[in-house]
Amino acid sequence: MRITPEPTMRRLPHYLHFLKRQLENGVEKISSTIIAQALSLDSTQVRKDLEYTGVKGKPKTGFFVKELIQAILEFLTWTTRRDAFLIGAGNLGSAMLGYNRFREYGLNFVAAFDTDENKIGSEIYKVPIFTLDKIPSMARRMNVQVGVLTVPAHAAQTATDLLVEGGIKAIWNFAPTYVKAPKEVVIENHQFTESLAALTRKMVEVDFHLEKYRLSNLEGNRT
Amino acid sequence: MRITPEPTMRRLPHYLHFLKRQLENGVEKISSTIIAQALSLDSTQVRKDLEYTGVKGKPKTGFFVKELIQAILEFLTWTTRRDAFLIGAGNLGSAMLGYNRFREYGLNFVAAFDTDENKIGSEIYKVPIFTLDKIPSMARRMNVQVGVLTVPAHAAQTATDLLVEGGIKAIWNFAPTYVKAPKEVVIENHQFTESLAALTRKMVEVDFHLEKYRLSNLEGNRT
Repeated sequence: MRITPEPTMRRLPHYLHFLKRQLENGVEKISSTIIAQALSLDSTQVRKDLEYTGVKGKPKTGFFVKELIQAILEFLTWTTRRDAFLIGAGNLGSAMLGYNRFREYGLNFVAAFDTDENKIGSEIYKVPIFTLDKIPSMARRMNVQVGVLTVPAHAAQTATDLLVEGGIKAIWNFAPTYVKAPKEVVIENHQFTESLAALTRKMVEVDFHLEKYRLSNLEGNRT
Repeated sequence: MRITPEPTMRRLPHYLHFLKRQLENGVEKISSTIIAQALSLDSTQVRKDLEYTGVKGKPKTGFFVKELIQAILEFLTWTTRRDAFLIGAGNLGSAMLGYNRFREYGLNFVAAFDTDENKIGSEIYKVPIFTLDKIPSMARRMNVQVGVLTVPAHAAQTATDLLVEGGIKAIWNFAPTYVKAPKEVVIENHQFTESLAALTRKMVEVDFHLEKYRLSNLEGNRT
């Protein structure tokens, strides 16, 4: 198995989304050049990214849209249902429980956990809410692989430890702090403060960054 | 002005958060080694990151916590109020309008825009909702610098064009698609599908990634 570069992983959903729209519009075949133009990417980059999924485009005809969509979905394992726990049923957590489109990505919330006694025993968007101490036993019994953290920073490590104790394989961390887990547990941080920091600092450095991006694009073309 | 590496920008909020907690606990001085340990980072990395803010730690004593917090805030320009528009007052958009902590980062929503006639003319968390065609003139008049996109994919480019027409300087894009804007406009994509793709694919490749991470950590220590 090849190691997929993380930027490639992150671009694949964008290809997927674009390809789905093309399919809706009746497009059956597409070239990496067209995809690249539509998404403002370099076409060599697009070709390389798509190679990871195992689908080969043909010269002139390019890719079959349907086949490519399927290949990306399988590569990302989004065709497989994955049961998940959500820890922290506050504003963000509740919004996530109600977001139907996670199912499209295979993510299926089977239970949520919170410390608020008013929430425990109730349901949010039909997902039942439990106390945090139930996490390890329920995770093992239900064979839950993914834990989504939408707790405040101070509660993030405790929640992580309980998930790890339950044998969880991956943690999607929306809490505004880093968490620690054994190396074999995948941790994906998704903190808006990170991208806000990049946004606000780039506003100051924009001219310098334009130059840097220009250079890194040139490098991208060379490799 | 030095060009700040993007990973450095993205780590700074984590230092900030940790330092604020230390200050609350009465810690006045701190070393980069302690920060590194607490956040599971390499201490050389931490020192380098913090150098960008212009604050110098002293041998043995390290950094003054208060001074370092202030330096990071100023470096990220989070001490400056920045008026923002939010485009798309759906579930996510509404949650963002109600999220008080954006003010801590200088982000101040002054208006939101939606196509839903039932919302237009009303307020969400005291932020008034307007039709999208008002964006350019209002952005210019109010000197709004940041546009936050929480629209569906199909509406993202139209919204972006209107923001650009209004002279906006940065777009924080939560819509599940890329958008195009002139080079001088900072675009920061914040799509959960990106991190979900990384999460689910890493779950497959985890052993290979562990090896890769080990190697890149060694490199990190060497440079």
